[in-house]
Amino acid sequence: MTAISLLPIHGIPEVRPGDVLAELIIAAAGTDPGLRNGDVLVVTQKVVSKAEGRLVAVDMDILDDHKRLVLDEAVRVVRRRVSERGELLITETRHGFVCANSGVDLSNVDEGFAALLPLDSDRSARRIRDGIRGHLGIEVGVIISDTFGRAWRKGLTDVAIGCAGVAGVVDLRGSEDANGRQLHVTEVCVVDELAGAAELVMGKATGVAVAVVRGVDPEWLREGSVRAEVVRSPQEDLFR
Amino acid sequence: MTAISLLPIHGIPEVRPGDVLAELIIAAAGTDPGLRNGDVLVVTQKVVSKAEGRLVAVDMDILDDHKRLVLDEAVRVVRRRVSERGELLITETRHGFVCANSGVDLSNVDEGFAALLPLDSDRSARRIRDGIRGHLGIEVGVIISDTFGRAWRKGLTDVAIGCAGVAGVVDLRGSEDANGRQLHVTEVCVVDELAGAAELVMGKATGVAVAVVRGVDPEWLREGSVRAEVVRSPQEDLFR
Repeated sequence: MTAISLLPIHGIPEVRPGDVLAELIIAAAGTDPGLRNGDVLVVTQKVVSKAEGRLVAVDMDILDDHKRLVLDEAVRVVRRRVSERGELLITETRHGFVCANSGVDLSNVDEGFAALLPLDSDRSARRIRDGIRGHLGIEVGVIISDTFGRAWRKGLTDVAIGCAGVAGVVDLRGSEDANGRQLHVTEVCVVDELAGAAELVMGKATGVAVAVVRGVDPEWLREGSVRAEVVRSPQEDLFR
Repeated sequence: MTAISLLPIHGIPEVRPGDVLAELIIAAAGTDPGLRNGDVLVVTQKVVSKAEGRLVAVDMDILDDHKRLVLDEAVRVVRRRVSERGELLITETRHGFVCANSGVDLSNVDEGFAALLPLDSDRSARRIRDGIRGHLGIEVGVIISDTFGRAWRKGLTDVAIGCAGVAGVVDLRGSEDANGRQLHVTEVCVVDELAGAAELVMGKATGVAVAVVRGVDPEWLREGSVRAEVVRSPQEDLFR
């Protein structure tokens, strides 16, 4: 296994509804770090939601307006907790993601607006991948990332909510381990590890919305889908 | 933000009880990739458990012998599922980790043996960090990683079960977002993102047990603890 580089892309301008992200990314990547065949681009949900016009007005003076949005975006409330800091809803979104507040986000958007998750974040990833292929004639993987909490562990990590051109889960079932013994189940969710890795060069407050992961195992660069490979169906899930 | 490199360390020999991991890592790292001030080393649990003698005999012909070990290592069974593939126990370990089979692992160890988690994986990380400081006079962060499943999402990812010299969670509460608006809660579990990133250059079957993450934000390089910062107490947890 060879090295992997995590490279932030600086200089992407404020994204507006209708902007073509592939073009903004190509311009900002320039020649350093540039974009190369086999790169995996990780793009944060916020700029995808902005480009796709997934912004809605929210009246912060009406206490329930945020909650109404959260419930509109949810298919079920998985957990609810009321504390001195307010009400927290862990919900399941239409995509099948389980996360806080249905992914409705008030940070890094203009005052008075909230960003909703893309309607189909695998499709959002395909659109960027296809745009880069069309403009540069290269094959890249694209991941749309968002920042989610987890059960059992404190702190948030970035995970994949959509992907294209890169595997969601790599199945190592049946590969031999280093001792020649069968590995029974090792299905690695590389798309979440890639999303989390990219976050390390983004930071939350620096405005870096895209990073390049360079040096990824070429075998992972196949058509992928977070919805099909990563989302666990409620029937299979022990925790909702 | 500048680039981060993920560098596998090849050539660590089969680890035996009593081996000093810091010395094995220094020897294998050599001059390429070497070890530098500010590097974060990610060391997989398996070699730590071997070095610390956390191997126990398991008789695979006795069907319940593996289960007995799992229950011995657990403080509670969080979920239990029986399927055609057998019984799966999601347990809480003494450390407070919630994972499959209390982290008892039969892969990549000699036939007839199972590897248990280190008794105190933060301490295991400190021991490696101190050893490298003693031999090379440099300050590195050390993460002990293991491969866990998650609620709601398919596939496994590597997470941190211990750390030293690197933060568990970086608290960005109160930092301003790119629009100058207050970020209300952004506590990023960088230690899990670092562990997952390192896995990308390890693979499950290649025998690479240690990787270097080079270029990490120096502000994250403080004394850290997975137990204190990342493990969510049962009282605070909505999912057990």
